[in-house]
Amino acid sequence: MIATTPDTPYYAVIFTSIRTDFEDGYADMATRMVEMAHKQPGFLGVESARTELGITVSYWESLESIRAWKQVFDHRIAQQIGRERWYESYKVRVCKVERDYGFEL
Amino acid sequence: MIATTPDTPYYAVIFTSIRTDFEDGYADMATRMVEMAHKQPGFLGVESARTELGITVSYWESLESIRAWKQVFDHRIAQQIGRERWYESYKVRVCKVERDYGFEL
Repeated sequence: MIATTPDTPYYAVIFTSIRTDFEDGYADMATRMVEMAHKQPGFLGVESARTELGITVSYWESLESIRAWKQVFDHRIAQQIGRERWYESYKVRVCKVERDYGFEL
Repeated sequence: MIATTPDTPYYAVIFTSIRTDFEDGYADMATRMVEMAHKQPGFLGVESARTELGITVSYWESLESIRAWKQVFDHRIAQQIGRERWYESYKVRVCKVERDYGFEL
């Protein structure tokens, strides 16, 4: 579940959100967006968690691959419905991952 | 709860983790580390969520401020106990935030 990513540098999009109370298609959309992202050129992986705050981090080969994913038609629709219905607020941060290290038991 | 951060560029540390079943001081440590981080020079904010995966993103003014926080004695102790007891695995990614945008109802 921790994304397996290549050697740095690569890119990350940190999507932090607070949901409204409207469920109405949200879970289906979220599942579908993750499936679609997996098929995008340059997609490397995704990590997701939600308590009060939701944090989804997706990893990408390049800024171009992030830009292309942002423009995919179904994703644009999801972004629009998100603002109209599912999210009270969100923030998107596009980052260059410069260094990483890990630990496993 | 979504961190208020300055204009880009600034830095983010994405800490993704899978916990063991040992509670034993974990919640106290987590609270204390967030309190201590707030007092560190260059600290900008933190966002945190956990489902199966835990994701904590802390934001910083510079790579130097991230390096300094990594070396703080109590934080080093927490990292060590984390590897011995609380975490099955984790990954740390140090990033430069190049662009951000948001939405609020």
